[in-house]
Amino acid sequence: MPQGQVTSVPDDGLTTRQRRRQAVLAVHTGHGKGKSTAAFGMALRAWNAGWPVGVFQFVKSEKWRVGEEAALKALGQVPGGAPVAWHKMGEGWSWIQRAGTERDHAAEAAEGWAQIKRDLAAETHTFYVLDEFTYPMKWGWVDVADVVATLRERPGVQHVVITGRDAHPELLAAADLVTEMTKVKHPMDAGRKGQRGIEW
Amino acid sequence: MPQGQVTSVPDDGLTTRQRRRQAVLAVHTGHGKGKSTAAFGMALRAWNAGWPVGVFQFVKSEKWRVGEEAALKALGQVPGGAPVAWHKMGEGWSWIQRAGTERDHAAEAAEGWAQIKRDLAAETHTFYVLDEFTYPMKWGWVDVADVVATLRERPGVQHVVITGRDAHPELLAAADLVTEMTKVKHPMDAGRKGQRGIEW
Repeated sequence: MPQGQVTSVPDDGLTTRQRRRQAVLAVHTGHGKGKSTAAFGMALRAWNAGWPVGVFQFVKSEKWRVGEEAALKALGQVPGGAPVAWHKMGEGWSWIQRAGTERDHAAEAAEGWAQIKRDLAAETHTFYVLDEFTYPMKWGWVDVADVVATLRERPGVQHVVITGRDAHPELLAAADLVTEMTKVKHPMDAGRKGQRGIEW
Repeated sequence: MPQGQVTSVPDDGLTTRQRRRQAVLAVHTGHGKGKSTAAFGMALRAWNAGWPVGVFQFVKSEKWRVGEEAALKALGQVPGGAPVAWHKMGEGWSWIQRAGTERDHAAEAAEGWAQIKRDLAAETHTFYVLDEFTYPMKWGWVDVADVVATLRERPGVQHVVITGRDAHPELLAAADLVTEMTKVKHPMDAGRKGQRGIEW
């Protein structure tokens, strides 16, 4: 149980109140489960705080996250609640009208990142989930230095959670909070299949 | 990205369809963040699958999980959606009418576990979050052998996620899915304070 114990007080001239309103960059990495799931759990807290939530899903499977997507979109429809915007690469970003079915994942990832940059500059959302965003960084589809610089310089108080394996060391260095999820035991090791409600 | 690759096929006489409907016991442990958050993220998937969700919160702080509680309760109110029941030890279990303000956490934890046993026997919920339940197990407030036997013998298809540090080895042995969350970097290390929307 985290007790909220501060182990050192920084000499940054900020009041406790100001430190309570600092933007957080979190990274959930490692080979275990729960990286994205915990990010969507954090989105529940953000929603309850009244913060507009923006999800950018850099995954290709249509199956993943359908539960989280449906639930967070339902929350986004609650009268008086914070809005939830959900964008996914798997069906083309929602702001792009695309003809035909040809797909270029690298270009799609770059388009997604370009939109995130626009949203950060405009302070469109307060809480961002960049789901599986470590992969386009790893594969060179987006520029790591650009990502880190953009996040470091983002205006206002915008919280960003990035998920995925093999997070780049420069991203980890820039992050405020890094958690590694490690698989200890998994039902698929015993030959069990993924199932609706549990895996998606 | 989990690809759902099964590394072995068990000789259990079950079809793939049957293995897709097996009850899961998951444990999120370790000293990092995201153990409970990921459990509540899983609850989003369960809710989307139409499964009644039951949360049993074995924590004493009134502050924790307020965001998850508000959001999951809001989902429980969505017309046509699955119900969400939220019980917490911090205010006395909701099924107990309590006089006065004296508190006995060990007795409260035992009462909570007794209710979970009744709910499992009655198949009241399909997805259970036993939040921070490793602690009453660790502290001897509930009997580990009773917990493990009850979970092993639970009827029907009821999925259970247990969170908290220092999970008992017998619980880990009984679990289908164990993930360890490890802290790599935390903002409180740099003297930052917890904040609404991020920490609760």
